[in-house]
Amino acid sequence: MRSQQNGEQVVPSIRMTEVGPRDGLQNEAGIVPTEAKVSFVNTLSQSGVAEIEVGSFVSSQAIPQLADSDEVFRRIERRAGVIYSALVPNERGLERARAAAVDKIAVFTAASDTFVQRNIHCTLRESIERFKPVVSQAKRDGMAVRGYVSTVIHCPFEGAVAPLRVVQVMQELLELGVDEISLGDTIGKAAPGDVRRLLDAVTPHLGRTALSLHFHDTYGMAVANVLAAWMEYGIVSFDTSAGGLGGCPYAPGASGNVATEDVVYALRVSGASVDVDERLVVHAARQMGMVLNRPLSSRLSCVYERHTTYETLR
Amino acid sequence: MRSQQNGEQVVPSIRMTEVGPRDGLQNEAGIVPTEAKVSFVNTLSQSGVAEIEVGSFVSSQAIPQLADSDEVFRRIERRAGVIYSALVPNERGLERARAAAVDKIAVFTAASDTFVQRNIHCTLRESIERFKPVVSQAKRDGMAVRGYVSTVIHCPFEGAVAPLRVVQVMQELLELGVDEISLGDTIGKAAPGDVRRLLDAVTPHLGRTALSLHFHDTYGMAVANVLAAWMEYGIVSFDTSAGGLGGCPYAPGASGNVATEDVVYALRVSGASVDVDERLVVHAARQMGMVLNRPLSSRLSCVYERHTTYETLR
Repeated sequence: MRSQQNGEQVVPSIRMTEVGPRDGLQNEAGIVPTEAKVSFVNTLSQSGVAEIEVGSFVSSQAIPQLADSDEVFRRIERRAGVIYSALVPNERGLERARAAAVDKIAVFTAASDTFVQRNIHCTLRESIERFKPVVSQAKRDGMAVRGYVSTVIHCPFEGAVAPLRVVQVMQELLELGVDEISLGDTIGKAAPGDVRRLLDAVTPHLGRTALSLHFHDTYGMAVANVLAAWMEYGIVSFDTSAGGLGGCPYAPGASGNVATEDVVYALRVSGASVDVDERLVVHAARQMGMVLNRPLSSRLSCVYERHTTYETLR
Repeated sequence: MRSQQNGEQVVPSIRMTEVGPRDGLQNEAGIVPTEAKVSFVNTLSQSGVAEIEVGSFVSSQAIPQLADSDEVFRRIERRAGVIYSALVPNERGLERARAAAVDKIAVFTAASDTFVQRNIHCTLRESIERFKPVVSQAKRDGMAVRGYVSTVIHCPFEGAVAPLRVVQVMQELLELGVDEISLGDTIGKAAPGDVRRLLDAVTPHLGRTALSLHFHDTYGMAVANVLAAWMEYGIVSFDTSAGGLGGCPYAPGASGNVATEDVVYALRVSGASVDVDERLVVHAARQMGMVLNRPLSSRLSCVYERHTTYETLR
């Protein structure tokens, strides 16, 4: 977690990737108006998160909720220093991403064959093959590339996933040229011990700054996992979702991503350097909660709900 | 966490103290019918929890919600092996506890003077003095005694609490003759690092089986704290509340106790031996949630809500 530099201890800052606008919203049944998405991203842009996954350039049939990603990208105010990314499944999606001037694309596969099959309707091998031209073209176009590996600990269909399987898939993605890897506990069943076993296998093969962890909080262990990964392995990059929005339609029982504000708070009070204003994240999530007409599940949103208004909160 | 015995590894079982009926309900504004409390305790009795804090023998003016504790004790079905306890503030309360045939009483103080003053309206010193005759009489009457120390990490009025202060208060309680100590993070601001500092100070002075930890989940770190205490310090006794019921009227921002079912699940998947059926805990909490007419905040209750009915759940 700490590196020595000129004799002084340097604590690397935490890098938060906000996935609420994409992973958070993609399973919401009611279509969120474009204007609300733009406002959500704009507020999050002010909060200090390093990166925002704004949308997905998949077919509008596959995920109707994100069919307006092109327009969202056109209308958001880009803040200097913030990276705006999007999920891209294929070359057609890459064209749209380029037209939308995204900073980084993400390709998505999993460590479980069955999960890949049910989720993106091809084999794991085919998913990697399909990404080859996408990744190389994206790099030529000057876009950074993230590779998602989901179901890194449990697959809802296959059960426990071996860490070496994750290493294998991750290495195939790295060979394609992806700049970073995000490992996802898609159904939120991972405990800190599972995370340790995974990171023991994974970290020898990947620079820690090229690794992000993506936890869902289905069973309430995501904050414990984040803290273990940071404190014991020096992982500094986490994917989270404002207000704990999100879920996974293909993963029975999966609830939302772990809430950005709860992770920011837990890391900061544990001693990490986190330049994110969690109050602005709560504010963004609360605005989105009003659009979705349902309560948010983050702990910090409850704390602020009871004891402050946005005016005092700011 | 593991002790050697005859050359074999023995993993001590986790001991869950269910505080939902007392700590969980005491701040609910609407009075819960006695019948619902009895049913709540009876279902929890079947779940495998070691102990249930059924009520409180304080004045009915102080906590109207628990004014019927005598009757609840009379009407519950006691299951062999389960300990039924109650909070007792003074000798009058002890008489009622004896009449109700409670197995264990609990006295309550804090590691912060201001918190004691606001909560039980006397100084910390006076609270200890007041407990002297209560504890000695309870012991003569054959009841076990638990000593609560709250605000062991943060006080909502005084801020950070020094671990040595906690040790001091704990030792005064032990000198009175209490059999066990429960240390409470009353406002739920503790992070695993805080818990480590506390346990480094506390565990040299107290057998691990005489210590219970009592976390609130206000800021979402309670499960992380439980796992750290168990994995790193071998703490096996935790106070939790079915469905995450509870809070603290004197602690601004405090939300509920950490949910029993979430702690049971997290400990078990982390490798602990936990003989509690979390589905029955969810069922008990769900019944109480219907009485309270509000949703529960535990993660497991959400998982079960979506994917099963009670019939399949059992």
